[in-house]
This record gives sequence, C-alpha cells and structure tokens, in this order.
Amino acid sequence: MNSVRLSRRMNGLHSSAIRDLLTLTARPDIISLAGGLPDPSFIPRERIAREIDSVLTDPGSVQYGETTGIRVLRSVLAEREGARIGRSLDPAEVVVTHGSQQALSLLAQALVDPGDVVIVEDPAYTGALQVFRTAEAEVIGVPLDADGMDVTALESMLASGVRPALVHTVSNFHNPRGVVLSAERRIALAGLADRYGFWVIEDDPYGQLWFDAPTPDPVAAHSDRVIRLSSASKVLAPALRVGWMHGNREVCAAVELLKQGADLCGSSLTQQVAAGLLADEEWFGAHLSELRSRYGARARALVSAVESEFADRVSVTPAGGGMFCWVQFADHGIDTHALLQTAIEHGVAFVPGSAFAVRADLDSELRLCFATSPEEALQDAVRRLRLAYDDWSAQS
Amino acid sequence: MNSVRLSRRMNGLHSSAIRDLLTLTARPDIISLAGGLPDPSFIPRERIAREIDSVLTDPGSVQYGETTGIRVLRSVLAEREGARIGRSLDPAEVVVTHGSQQALSLLAQALVDPGDVVIVEDPAYTGALQVFRTAEAEVIGVPLDADGMDVTALESMLASGVRPALVHTVSNFHNPRGVVLSAERRIALAGLADRYGFWVIEDDPYGQLWFDAPTPDPVAAHSDRVIRLSSASKVLAPALRVGWMHGNREVCAAVELLKQGADLCGSSLTQQVAAGLLADEEWFGAHLSELRSRYGARARALVSAVESEFADRVSVTPAGGGMFCWVQFADHGIDTHALLQTAIEHGVAFVPGSAFAVRADLDSELRLCFATSPEEALQDAVRRLRLAYDDWSAQS
Repeated sequence: MNSVRLSRRMNGLHSSAIRDLLTLTARPDIISLAGGLPDPSFIPRERIAREIDSVLTDPGSVQYGETTGIRVLRSVLAEREGARIGRSLDPAEVVVTHGSQQALSLLAQALVDPGDVVIVEDPAYTGALQVFRTAEAEVIGVPLDADGMDVTALESMLASGVRPALVHTVSNFHNPRGVVLSAERRIALAGLADRYGFWVIEDDPYGQLWFDAPTPDPVAAHSDRVIRLSSASKVLAPALRVGWMHGNREVCAAVELLKQGADLCGSSLTQQVAAGLLADEEWFGAHLSELRSRYGARARALVSAVESEFADRVSVTPAGGGMFCWVQFADHGIDTHALLQTAIEHGVAFVPGSAFAVRADLDSELRLCFATSPEEALQDAVRRLRLAYDDWSAQS
Repeated sequence: MNSVRLSRRMNGLHSSAIRDLLTLTARPDIISLAGGLPDPSFIPRERIAREIDSVLTDPGSVQYGETTGIRVLRSVLAEREGARIGRSLDPAEVVVTHGSQQALSLLAQALVDPGDVVIVEDPAYTGALQVFRTAEAEVIGVPLDADGMDVTALESMLASGVRPALVHTVSNFHNPRGVVLSAERRIALAGLADRYGFWVIEDDPYGQLWFDAPTPDPVAAHSDRVIRLSSASKVLAPALRVGWMHGNREVCAAVELLKQGADLCGSSLTQQVAAGLLADEEWFGAHLSELRSRYGARARALVSAVESEFADRVSVTPAGGGMFCWVQFADHGIDTHALLQTAIEHGVAFVPGSAFAVRADLDSELRLCFATSPEEALQDAVRRLRLAYDDWSAQS
C-alpha cells in the first residue's frame, strides 16, 4: 500500500465524537440520548409525499438549479426571516445551503484565514469546532451561563486586544447547553460586532422549537454584521438537506462563489418541497404547534426524571425548547467520559461534556437529548443512568 | 455599509463564466448550447415518483444518514464500480457525495496544500479549476489531443522535476473537448502515478453515455493511486444530488472527516431513490440504452449541421458520447469570445474556448452542448451561428 500524505489541514482534525458514538449506540438494547435527531415519527412524511407528487409534475424539479437556491424558496425564506428581524429582506440576501452546516463551512472558508481568531461558546457546537479547525483558525472559547454567551467576558477579551474574524453563537436553545441568549446580551453582542468590526454567525436551528414562549428578537435584528443561519432539518425533515443563511450581500456573493466549487447547487426537488411546506402557513403553523407540544412534553418528562432520580446530586438546565438538556453533577470528582462506559453497559448513552469543550473543564457534565425517544423511554433511560451512576460511584 | 474583508482564498476566485452565461441565456428567444444540462424530458420523473412513494414508507428515509452515504447505495455502487475496474470493492471504499463536484472539492481539501502543484487538462473542466484555485494550488495544464490527455507531455513534465500532488482527468467524453483517453494512455498514466506517487482523480460523469461503443477500462483499473468519481446527475437526475467516489481507504476516511464539517451527510431520501433505480438493472439498462440512442441522435445532428454550415472553416470533434462537441475554427484570427456577443444577438449561445483555458490559446475554439435541445433546435442554432459568424467576419 502506498503511504498517504494528506494536506496540513487534516492534522489535528478528528472525527466528531458524537457521530462515532452514534454508531456505537445504534444497538437496539441501548436507549440513546446521545444524538440530536428529530423523532422520525414527528416528521410529516405523508405531507412530504403529497408535495413531492405535485412538485414532480414540473420538469424543472429534477434539473440543476441556481447555486444560491431556487428562487421560490429564497422568496419564502426572505419573507419569513425578514419578519423575524423586523426589516424586509431581498431574496438576493438569502443563500440556501445543504443544511445550515454547509453555510457554516462556506462562511469559514469565505471569512477565515489560517491563524485568524474565531470565538465560539465554551461548550460549543461540535460541528462548528470541526469547521473552524478545518479552516485552521485559532479557536477561543467564551463561557456560557444561564443567559447564554457571557458577553461581558467577550467584551473583556476584545478590550484586551483579541481581534476575532468572527464570533459564533447558538443563540436559541444552545447545543449543548440548552440556554437562550438574553435580549440584553443580543443587543450588547450586536453592538460589539459593530464597534470592533467582526462578524457574528448566529446559528439558529432550534429557535422555532420553543415550548413556553418565543425567543427574543434575533441578534441579526440589531446589526448588519450578523449572518443568520437556520434550517428545515429540525422542523421539517433532515433528509431535505435544506438550510439557509441571510446577511450581508458581499458575504452572500462570496458564499455563492464557494458553493459553485463545493457542489454546484442544491436539490431543486427537495428545495421545492421545503418551499411548498413553509409557504403553506396554516399547515406549517399547526405542524410547529404540534412539534412544540410533543417535544415540550418530552423535555419536561426528562428533566423531572433527572430531578427525581438524582435530586441534589445534579443541576439540570430547564429545557425551554430545542432538543437538549444539560446536566451538571454536584460531585466534581465525577468523570462523565468514564461514566459513559458504565452507562452503555446499563443500556443508556449520552454525550460527555468534554466532547463540547474548547478549554472549559466539563468532565462533570453531560448532554441529554430528549427529542428522539418517547416519555417512557426517557424515564427508563434516566433510571438506567442512575444505576450506572451508583455502580460507577461504588467502583470509584 | 461596513467594508468586507474576505479570506485570502477568495482572491482571484471568480464566478464560473459558464454559470454566469446560463443566467444571460435563459431568454426564451435564445437557443442555448452553452450549458451542460441533461434534457429534463429524458429524466425519468414517473419512475422517480414511484420510487419516492415506496421509499417514504420507511421513517429512516427522512432522517439524518451516515456521512459517507446510506449503506444500501454504497453497496450498489461498490458492485457497479467494482465490475468496471475488475476487482471487488468494499462499501467502505465508496463515499457518496453531493454530486461528484463535492467529491472533487473535498479531495482538494484533503490532498492539496496551498502552493502544491495540481495538473489538469488544458482545456479543463471549469468546476475543477475553481476547486483547485480555491485550494490555492499551483494549477498547471497539460495538453489534450484526439486521444485525451497527452501523457507523454505529462511524463516530460515529471521528468523535468514537476511534482504534482494530483492529476485531474476527465477520461471519458471530456468536458469540454469531447475526447476519450485511449486505453494505452490510461495504462501509461496509471504507471506514472505509481512511479511518481501522485494521485489521479479520474472524473467520469459521462462514461455511461457512450453512443457507439463502450469506453476503455477506467484508469482506476490500473492503479490504486486513482480516485474515481462519477455521478447520477447525467444518467438519472441532477436534482438527486448523488455523486460518488471510490478509492484508497485512507483518502475516503479523510473525505468523510471533511464531509462531517462540510454538510454532516447527504439526503437519505434521494440516496434511497438512486439506490433503488440503479439496483433495478433491467429498468436502468433500458433507460441507459434509450439515453444513448436519444443523445446520440442529437450529437450526430449537431455535428452534421456544423459540418454542412461551416464546411472546412472548422473542424469539429466527432462526438462519441457525453454532452459536448468542440469546434475549432481554421481561421485563427477569430475570437470566439467576441463572436459570442454577435451570436447572442442572433439568438444562439455557446461557451468560448477561453473559458476552459489554463494557459492554452483557445480563442478560436468553442464548446457546444447537444444534450439539452432536440435535433431541429440544434440545426436551427447552427444556422444562427453561421449567420452570426458571417456577420462578425464582415465586421472584422
């Protein structure tokens, strides 16, 4: 076999711990709270099938499409996103991508040179860490608390001379922390972007999945320095592979140019389906309400199971939306990475906090996904986790 | 408006001339031979619709899928591609990508550092030029003749000390030149890859679309140093966005890692459709035969129209497959880029040779696509081109 020399950017790049875990936990005897997958039974397959039948009557639905996405979808998105940020958007300010992950990846290519500073939340979305490491950025973490990114800590960094090319935030129902960036901090973050001239990537796949109350206005409502990302994956179906970004036109043009090389264009077929479903406001509104109610019930079931099984041994983020809750053990001697092995023996999986760490010590924390399993399975999973915890504590 | 600082890799990157042209030539009064689009009426929409209805009964069809592609599709592809290269392939040696363009893009990221030499054919596929320029490679062209890449010229370059990271070739029905790499040159190219330790990317979207006789064994049949790319876009439908690569496992693993960051995974839905259609050998065989016969008739119609309108003013590549034929004016004073403006006034569009040039002088050459328009439209288009040529000659 020939020896394989890979490019420099492959150094230090390693597989997403979560994706590897997903392979491990596909065993039927394991209840996995590790992934971040919507429940397939909540995905409107019949509605998608009907839409596809209608879309396929048009020969254009199977042809190559525009690199930035088919016009009708960009119009629907411009209208929806414009309403969220409180100003009208032109379809030319919207780029449809292959999931919002592709937007993140192309933005990193467009905006980041090797060695540039990129600031992420700590813990961070692992898909963002991968992208910024591939871009050979210097990745710096800023802490999170119950109100989201600690913008005061960010301000101190900036005041001390740190000059990021961009700051990445999951503003709504953070992955993995579950928290929402407060309205005040959104305004402050936008102000810092304007003052210091960096880009904010507001990565928002979960914002529509609120359970009790809508989230504050997007960061993008407060500055033109924000590129806002969202996705159909959590509210319609991951297999559509439809995400999008909107923001500065020059940045959109750069992303378009990179997308020509990256994959020419997305699927006209799944983009037409997404456009049809999002534009059917009555149906989509009812569908969202149902998702909110169903996922909300699961979130409450999971949180109350954790509280009743673990009591004051843990604190758990109250899950107001999204897909995740975050559990912090009061006993800082615990190592959730080691606990995971015991947990798998007991038939339950989660993601250890360290998988999301930039520099923070997250060894006594873990992420649970409440989206994929019904209430009874979530309760069963937490009982198994408690047994694993007892076992592990007895051994340690 | 804030000023926008883009990354270094954006310097010198410019929009694909062809994609820009497509926008220009969407006018209904223009017959465009400029694109490289399959005829939508040849795309089996009814068969796709039936397959989707069946696939959508499975909840997994709308969920996230494996990064390297759903298993059933990789198995079908391993079998088909294995048969072509004459050895059995493991599904782990296959990565499904978002069109073969994504494979090209991720391979460049995995294998090329800024400043590395990449050798392409001159003229080259513009999508490859974009990818290698984004990777900040030093792109060098090697000439083509009627038997494809001039492998002797490549050998001289290598002997003189040029050390490419990779060599890109469109081995079958070259885009834009229409030629097929001869069997002898395939063996010679594979031997050079082994001797000098570079990778060959054998980019083969058109190989199945032969009109008279199948193409020689792939370059990948002759060396493990070849990564072979192909696609469902030209034989099934572009909107499936299903391409694939196969080859060295370490390279596949590196591409998988990059694809996690690039877009997480492809569409389980369209991948299941592609798997179903490719595995239905009786149907797919008949469908391919029909495509060959229909596109073949168009190719012959276009070539004979060019020959009868222009006679010895041009030489035209006999089109044995694929989608393109290449026209070279005997009068080297002609500038096809300037001719294009006159042609558009006469209601016909093509791509000037210079759009594909690395360093070669292709000002008196042009590419015509015979795939998108029926025979009568092709003949009409060539008559318009002749009028434009006369007009342009009279003015110059």
